[in-house]
Formats: sequence, structure tokens, C-alpha cells
Amino acid sequence: GRKVLIVYAHQEPKSLNGSLKRVAVEELSKQGCSVTVSDLYAMQFEPRATRNDIVGCLHNSEEFNYGVETWEAYKRGDLSSDLVEEQKKVQEADLLIFQFPLYWFSMPAIMKGWMDRVLVQGFAHEFPNCYDSGLLKDKLALFSFTTGGSREMYAKGGISGDIRYILWPMQHGIMHFCGVKVLSPHICFAPEYVSEEKRKEMLTAWAQRLRTLWNEEPINCSPEWYFK
Amino acid sequence: GRKVLIVYAHQEPKSLNGSLKRVAVEELSKQGCSVTVSDLYAMQFEPRATRNDIVGCLHNSEEFNYGVETWEAYKRGDLSSDLVEEQKKVQEADLLIFQFPLYWFSMPAIMKGWMDRVLVQGFAHEFPNCYDSGLLKDKLALFSFTTGGSREMYAKGGISGDIRYILWPMQHGIMHFCGVKVLSPHICFAPEYVSEEKRKEMLTAWAQRLRTLWNEEPINCSPEWYFK
Repeated sequence: GRKVLIVYAHQEPKSLNGSLKRVAVEELSKQGCSVTVSDLYAMQFEPRATRNDIVGCLHNSEEFNYGVETWEAYKRGDLSSDLVEEQKKVQEADLLIFQFPLYWFSMPAIMKGWMDRVLVQGFAHEFPNCYDSGLLKDKLALFSFTTGGSREMYAKGGISGDIRYILWPMQHGIMHFCGVKVLSPHICFAPEYVSEEKRKEMLTAWAQRLRTLWNEEPINCSPEWYFK
Repeated sequence: GRKVLIVYAHQEPKSLNGSLKRVAVEELSKQGCSVTVSDLYAMQFEPRATRNDIVGCLHNSEEFNYGVETWEAYKRGDLSSDLVEEQKKVQEADLLIFQFPLYWFSMPAIMKGWMDRVLVQGFAHEFPNCYDSGLLKDKLALFSFTTGGSREMYAKGGISGDIRYILWPMQHGIMHFCGVKVLSPHICFAPEYVSEEKRKEMLTAWAQRLRTLWNEEPINCSPEWYFK
């Protein structure tokens, strides 16, 4: 059975994001996958990258460098327990699903904090092991999110520009950098402005897609996909 | 005298980001500007968008919708005091400078949380008042940041792609959406990998630029600038 980690960032279980998360847990479990959820708001996940992430003494206490300190702490086994916990989940997963509402052309800060703090050098990448040789290669990632703006606003030539422009930092800059292969994003446009029936169709479409997910080929995560 | 708000996100005052912030405070004060700094880590600024941002009762306590609740709370004057404080600083400023180290092709989570929580609907935008008619028009913004990767990695055709791709969500998706005009970014590439002398030159160049900043024209914040 494959292992899936869903990193989920919504405050409200009754939201469409909450339903999309539940649909994924149900459908993937039905397939025999073992599914773990990191429910970031429920966990009150800490988004701030601070000295607290390092247990015990610092490598250089004269001048705090977060990247260097967490790298060193990772090697010593001295990262804070919440990070170790998340890294274990990532390590075991074949697929990472990120489920969130788009906030300001990106993920909510609580999820950005998960990226900033969990994907430590030494664990997720370590020069020259980045991009295709990143340390998390052989894993897959999928960004599943809802938007405030409509599909038309996020079209090429639309007022908010092609939605793919937004995906570059998340898919290429984070996941691809760590060697993770990226599946096509799953986007529900403007669920707040459609009927209850349309929202139900969005849930059905997601369940449907998950049924054949393991047959999908990753996207070609290069500038052409985003900016062609 | 013009008013400047520096939103600053680095844990270490001795860092290059810390020095860039100090240089900006000094140079702009010397010009007669009144400068305010939001030092996010020192303030232990809360990045998480939660129910705590609304004082008193919710508009809809059955199903929590952060965007709707903060919009309603803004109109009632019921946003939490830390948000009111930041909004006051934004309201008074002619120029917003964001000073930070690039984390994962974006700003650190603590600064993303500032965007998520401070730029509330009703305060910064309110449909159809977005983009050129956003509620913060007549203000300027400037993103000043350091990178881990080199200028070559962030060149067009470089392994990390044109640095401008990264600026789209921050400059267009956030600032332009709120009507703020964007000055050219100020980027210090890979300061950790250059000599102390080169780092000093980076500080001098920043001070130099700030001397004539008020004569600068904003960029044309459209897809052409980013993806041409």
C-alpha cells in the first residue's frame, strides 16, 4: 500500500477545503493507501523560523543563521520535535498533497512555515543534491487549492495572469528543488461564488481524479510549462 | 517629510538583512523622512490567520470564513489590536519597504503572515477596488531581499529561472492588487558566499540608491515586466 501525507491548511472543517481533504482521505484509504494528515491549524503549527527550532547549543551563537543552524541541528539530531515529526511523515510518504485556499497568490503563511521549517538542508536538499537530484526524489507532490478569483481572472491575459505563474515558486522553487516530482495541480476556482451543486461536483471531480492518480505522469517542471 | 514603513523579517540584527534595514533607517531619516520599522521576529508577529483576529462575536459562527470575518470585523472596528496597529502604520506610509531573506522563492512565513492578516478586505482592497484602483493607491512598495542562490542561478535560462518570475506573486499579486505602485526590487545575491568587502559594497549601494529613490518611476507591473 502506498503512503500519502496530506498537509492541510484550513481553519474550518466545514469548508470546501475541509471536504476536499476528507474526500482524499476516504478515496485513498479505499484504495488501500495509508493516509496521514497534518492539519496545520488544528496542530497550531508554528510558522516562524526561530532559534527554538534548535535544541541545545547553537553552532554559532554569535550570529544566528537559521539555514546553517537547522542544517547543523539536523545532522546532530537536534531539531525540535515538531519538525522531526513532520520530517518522519515526509520521509515515509510516496505522495505529498498540499490542500489549502490560495492566499495572496500563494499558500497561507501557516503552510509556508511548514515549508520553511520542515524542508531543512541535509534532509530535503544538500548542494549539489537539488532539483533532479534533490534528497526527496522518488516522491510525488500535488498542490490542491481553492481560489477567490475566477478561472477567467486567472487565464492568460486575465487580470490576475495565468494561474501557472503562481505555481512556479511552489512547484518548481520548493518541490522540484527537493527532487520531488510534481503532478498537475488540482484547482477549484471561486467556490464561494458558485452553487452548492457546483461545489458538490468539485468534490466528485476530485474523488474521480484520485481514482486514477497513480497512473498520472508528472508534469515537466521547467519554465516552458509555466511561462510558454 | 515623507513617511516610510519598513517591514523587516530577520532573526539576527548582525545579519546583512539587519544591516540593510539599519542603512535604510539612517539614510531615510537623514533625508527628513519619518521611518517606522515593524521588526516581525522581535515583535513575535503572529503569522497564522485564525479566529483570534476577530474581537467578539463572529458574523457567521456556524462556518468560519477568514476573509469574510476579517472584512466584517474591519467594518465594525473589531480586528485584533496587532492588526489595527499595523494597518495604521500602512495607512500613514508613503512607502513600504519589505526587507527579508528569500525563503523558498518567496518571503519567510512570518512576513507572508503579515500580508495575509494585515491586508484585509475593506482596508486594502474591496471589489471592484483592486489593482489600479486598489485602496492603497498613491503608496509605493519596494521589495529588498537577499538570496541563497547566485545571480547566475537566477538568470533567465539559469537553473532557478529568472528572478522576476518569483516577484510576480509578491509585487503583482499582493502590492499591485492593493493599488500600490512598485519600485524596482533591490536584490543582494548570495551574500553568504562573498567577501566581507563585497558585503560592505552591498550596503553602500543600497544607501546610494535610497538617496535618489524618490525620483524613481514605478515599474510597469504587468506580465511583460515579469515574463517577457
